[in-house]
Amino acid sequence: MNKSILFICISLLFYACTEGEKAPNSADQPQKETFAIVIHGGAGTILKENISDSMEQAYKVVLETSVRKGYKILEDGGSSLDAVEASIRILEDSPLFNAGKGAVFTNNGTNELDASIMQGKTKNAGAVAGVTTVKNPISLARAVMEQSEHVMLAREGAEEFAKEVGVTLVDPEYFYTESRMKALKRAQHKDSASQVSLYDPFAKDDKFGTVGCVALDKNGNITAGTSTGGMSNKRWGRIGDSPIIGAGTYANNETCGISATGWGEFFIRGVIAYDISAMMEYADLSLKDAAKKAIHKKLPEMGGDGGIIGIDHMGNIATVFNTAGMFRASIDKTGTLSIELYSEDQ
Amino acid sequence: MNKSILFICISLLFYACTEGEKAPNSADQPQKETFAIVIHGGAGTILKENISDSMEQAYKVVLETSVRKGYKILEDGGSSLDAVEASIRILEDSPLFNAGKGAVFTNNGTNELDASIMQGKTKNAGAVAGVTTVKNPISLARAVMEQSEHVMLAREGAEEFAKEVGVTLVDPEYFYTESRMKALKRAQHKDSASQVSLYDPFAKDDKFGTVGCVALDKNGNITAGTSTGGMSNKRWGRIGDSPIIGAGTYANNETCGISATGWGEFFIRGVIAYDISAMMEYADLSLKDAAKKAIHKKLPEMGGDGGIIGIDHMGNIATVFNTAGMFRASIDKTGTLSIELYSEDQ
Repeated sequence: MNKSILFICISLLFYACTEGEKAPNSADQPQKETFAIVIHGGAGTILKENISDSMEQAYKVVLETSVRKGYKILEDGGSSLDAVEASIRILEDSPLFNAGKGAVFTNNGTNELDASIMQGKTKNAGAVAGVTTVKNPISLARAVMEQSEHVMLAREGAEEFAKEVGVTLVDPEYFYTESRMKALKRAQHKDSASQVSLYDPFAKDDKFGTVGCVALDKNGNITAGTSTGGMSNKRWGRIGDSPIIGAGTYANNETCGISATGWGEFFIRGVIAYDISAMMEYADLSLKDAAKKAIHKKLPEMGGDGGIIGIDHMGNIATVFNTAGMFRASIDKTGTLSIELYSEDQ
Repeated sequence: MNKSILFICISLLFYACTEGEKAPNSADQPQKETFAIVIHGGAGTILKENISDSMEQAYKVVLETSVRKGYKILEDGGSSLDAVEASIRILEDSPLFNAGKGAVFTNNGTNELDASIMQGKTKNAGAVAGVTTVKNPISLARAVMEQSEHVMLAREGAEEFAKEVGVTLVDPEYFYTESRMKALKRAQHKDSASQVSLYDPFAKDDKFGTVGCVALDKNGNITAGTSTGGMSNKRWGRIGDSPIIGAGTYANNETCGISATGWGEFFIRGVIAYDISAMMEYADLSLKDAAKKAIHKKLPEMGGDGGIIGIDHMGNIATVFNTAGMFRASIDKTGTLSIELYSEDQ
């Protein structure tokens, strides 16, 4: 072998090796620089006059910590899946929101948690319903997606799976918070007094504290996730929209990612999260117009209320709700942070 | 009062009374005469060479009994809700289908049943997941829709609700069938032998035997319902598409009613039942074209298989599947009965 052939061979080998290293950024997986993230902490009768300045500040601190955590992952080139999981874990670990630590109580005085997550590239998804010992249900939903052939696992079966995959388990006592127990007692008192607790604004707020996150990463991949303690005073193993793919959570890289919060039964019947994506795909609506049609027309026509957060494939963010307020925060594709609690011009 | 005034008064009274009696047929609730019904008993590797003549005959008898039962209700002016429930109960009571009596076994050797029902007029819906002592899960799903504020109840909670509303309960032993126990043992043997049971055609068939019904009544109301024993050898409280509104069941008087059967995880991720309705609503596709797009394009692109039955608001029927066969029967708007097991030109 003469020297020039040897040189060509070494050059080719070097090229092959460095190309291998750069594979994730190569032409077939174009590196896009647009990325953005949006989170919610529930929608409901959230009015400035009902929330003290210190409480408002407390909510804002957790919302900002959560959204910045996910944003940093995206900024560093991480996946929207990692960002969504990390942001939701912070909301789950706070007692302020109806998810994880701050979950509301069921009629039996237990805490039953639901969560789901979906990836827009593969349309793979994972969901859990009615778990009682899982510290971060969003991480268990991710494990269902990644480590089982299934999409949705429920109750004792989901707990058994949780043990097998090794997510953090806690004693059910962990989910005890005094404010939620008071809310249960209030709801139960109303129930026995008037049988109209579902229409009581306090009861409504108790069921509206779901959390969620949608993110678009630099590779153009959208992920959406939702986590909740469900409806205060719920009975009969009720499952709401949060763990239902298409109702509370949906993601598709060609359209958008959506996480919903509100009166779950109506989001299930309206297939709200997927409906927004379908209007974008089939009726060529923008994310915002599709979300407005779903939340301001379809949902109230059925008698439901709540809201959604979403990001489209271009990185545009929408936060749309038909309640008085919705806890929400985002860092958009220009890097601008926004934290809002109350209504605003939409 | 003179005689002519008395006559006018009596005439007006008579008119008012007879109008009152005819109210359900009056102009604001137009009586349409079109009605139709379609049922399925699951899709899968259903090939003529694998089914004996006597077995084929047995399936056909139950399919015909079921579809005629629902049709009679519609013919007599009954609701599509009553027709769907009655037809599905017959399929649930047969050991031939993977629903009710013939439900497959879970990994633990138990039977966990799922069902859902939805009305196209109100878009109200009910669903149950993982019940073990309810003879006819479709009737419990209807009770959830009509007698609770919720859409979906799971496991022990759903059983508790079943007791409260008084649907027929049975000992779990009722669901024991030798053929399903053999199927479980086969699936478990394959599992330990190769860990690829999901790709084994026998295992697939064991999870494809869902039943369902869609009907349009003389008042233009569509109802869709689905009932299943889920996937043979399933673990961890797995919930498939059958009790998920939008995935396994959907109904909307303006578009169509759909009941799905197949590899549930893909029907959830594709939001298949609602997707067909969305394509009709937003992209102006016919029921058949929308169903073909969902079943022959979207589903296989994700790696899934199965089929759907549907009726649109004009009474047109579609039965579309990408498997070798699908147990199905219908009586269309001309009164023509059709019973099919295998593939046909679609």
